[in-house]
Amino acid sequence: MPRGLAGVLAAETELSDVRGREGFYHYRQYSAIELARKRTFEDVWHLMILGELPDPDQRVAFQQRTSALRAIPDSVRSLLPALAEAGASGNPLDEVRTALSLAGAARGVRPLYDTGREQRIEDALFASALVPTILTALHRLGRGQAPIEPRDDLPHAANYLYMLTGEEPARAPTSAIEKYLISTVDHGFNASTFTARVIASTGADLMACVVGALGALSGPLHGGAPSRALDTLDEIGTPDRIDPWIRQHVLSGDRIMGFGHPVYRTEDPRSRMLKGIAQDLGGDLVDFAVQVERRVVEILAELKPGRELHTNVEFFAGVVMELCGLPRTMFTPTFASARVVGWTANILEQAEDSKIIRPSARYVGPPPPQPVPSA
Amino acid sequence: MPRGLAGVLAAETELSDVRGREGFYHYRQYSAIELARKRTFEDVWHLMILGELPDPDQRVAFQQRTSALRAIPDSVRSLLPALAEAGASGNPLDEVRTALSLAGAARGVRPLYDTGREQRIEDALFASALVPTILTALHRLGRGQAPIEPRDDLPHAANYLYMLTGEEPARAPTSAIEKYLISTVDHGFNASTFTARVIASTGADLMACVVGALGALSGPLHGGAPSRALDTLDEIGTPDRIDPWIRQHVLSGDRIMGFGHPVYRTEDPRSRMLKGIAQDLGGDLVDFAVQVERRVVEILAELKPGRELHTNVEFFAGVVMELCGLPRTMFTPTFASARVVGWTANILEQAEDSKIIRPSARYVGPPPPQPVPSA
Repeated sequence: MPRGLAGVLAAETELSDVRGREGFYHYRQYSAIELARKRTFEDVWHLMILGELPDPDQRVAFQQRTSALRAIPDSVRSLLPALAEAGASGNPLDEVRTALSLAGAARGVRPLYDTGREQRIEDALFASALVPTILTALHRLGRGQAPIEPRDDLPHAANYLYMLTGEEPARAPTSAIEKYLISTVDHGFNASTFTARVIASTGADLMACVVGALGALSGPLHGGAPSRALDTLDEIGTPDRIDPWIRQHVLSGDRIMGFGHPVYRTEDPRSRMLKGIAQDLGGDLVDFAVQVERRVVEILAELKPGRELHTNVEFFAGVVMELCGLPRTMFTPTFASARVVGWTANILEQAEDSKIIRPSARYVGPPPPQPVPSA
Repeated sequence: MPRGLAGVLAAETELSDVRGREGFYHYRQYSAIELARKRTFEDVWHLMILGELPDPDQRVAFQQRTSALRAIPDSVRSLLPALAEAGASGNPLDEVRTALSLAGAARGVRPLYDTGREQRIEDALFASALVPTILTALHRLGRGQAPIEPRDDLPHAANYLYMLTGEEPARAPTSAIEKYLISTVDHGFNASTFTARVIASTGADLMACVVGALGALSGPLHGGAPSRALDTLDEIGTPDRIDPWIRQHVLSGDRIMGFGHPVYRTEDPRSRMLKGIAQDLGGDLVDFAVQVERRVVEILAELKPGRELHTNVEFFAGVVMELCGLPRTMFTPTFASARVVGWTANILEQAEDSKIIRPSARYVGPPPPQPVPSA
């Protein structure tokens, strides 16, 4: 039995695949990295949900359709300040989870089992359009700032940064964040996507699936790492401390945040692209991060020969987001704002299958039945 | 590739197992049905979370410990009326999902990855103690009634019925509901339990796992059936309409709610027990349900020989809950109030494993990489 279902085929998909040995992944028939370089976030969203890249007319229509879904339903908006205030876990995804769950109920999103394909697509677009608005609103409320209404005239990525700061963002950070968002839309049956599919297989409503996926993404072993990787860079602090820090952690067998991936056995293609974006943006932090990356690889080769370790998407994603001015508490929420497109595409696909996902367990406790003693 | 991971081993467990061919299931080393006949809900809860049936002292301590966790945190309580009002989906589990998510954030439940075993157990008991209070409160608010505070002096099942009606329940329905609750605490890697484990494998917080599981349970193919099975009885209406109704549905290949189970290939032991409980409670509804059950089996044998179909847990569970005076909208929530004990036991077990659950997908779309056309 492979631990964590590693390598076990759970379903067929036309959405994406990860070729771990080649360091390649794709959305439908296109390289995800090439999509990030050449197309907009909305184009890729259209590809994932509707099956093809849009032509110019479809592109305009999709932009209008999705931007009209950005606003928070009134009954949710009025409760956001109280939700932000009640949160004591320190994890912004917890509040987003609550707000999204509420938004699903407030909109009356119906079970997948009871809805047709067109309604499911509308619900999917609603969820993905809403997530950025909710998470920027909660972020601002948590700092005592008023939420900023979405602007219909801005594309997805620019509107996201605008809702965060209230200022129209510059071109370089917008482009960098847009490429990051595109590159994290989907990635095979990662734990949050798989969670969404398991829930969808019961015929539950689309928002129940998204809320569950968001919970999985909040786990430190899944979406929780980009800010931790940056915290590691802070902890190391200065170039002269790189080597001793790495040696100590490698020798004591600690997990080094931002390194290693359950599927990639070579360089993570997202990491390579984000490293390039970071280097284009430039600065001391980038140089330091590149130096740490290089030394981790080298010291590992020296101390534990044969055990290869590469940066994963989180390492340079954290650097890019920091350079673009995103607060660290927004790193994982920003990841979520892109991945929700992949979740919803997977939910729509799973909804076409009527078979519930229900694996087996191997029972390893004392053999039953033992007689139950009376109380 | 078995559809829906059927028969695929996903993990080892010491908690429960289902032997589909034998019609037998157990919690740890004990028959679940025997536990339901001989022990209290709290005893079984203790068994699942702490590993053994309690001795008399442990039993008193556990009763005190869990009843002290029943109250809704203040910041959640004050928002419940607004949550109940915002809900437009008509599914009470949607509101429970939101309220539980909020309760996790309000209590500051920390990621499994960052907490020790004792804290995780406390969080697990909190979640299971809180669910009945939240769902009865939301139910009453939805009917314009004030929520009823939990009573520390009542056992779990009696307190549940008390919070629903405001009256101390009679012995027969309390005992019937308690046996039902015990019998649905756990049942292998069903979709909601498996969802909880997938989320837990990311190191997310316990409430994120419970919220995801609740979403899976809200699916009509999983927890959504007990009231539908009863709706079917209503739709059939009178004994003379039983045969034509069944013939029509069997011939058109419709799914008959309350019949069939993905694992049991023989009688569902829960169904057998609940049928007995229903017959002890007695009444026209029970006679009618028994008659429908018998005719479904007989007509199926006649029209589709070789295809066996048995009632599942939902069929007689619905009858028992109806006889005990539970409103139909509370059927699946009542199921949830028991299953949360199984979810949390599974979450605690999964938290001991550091491996993320991440299966593979078989990509079946057009082969990549196709060149990305410029926009």
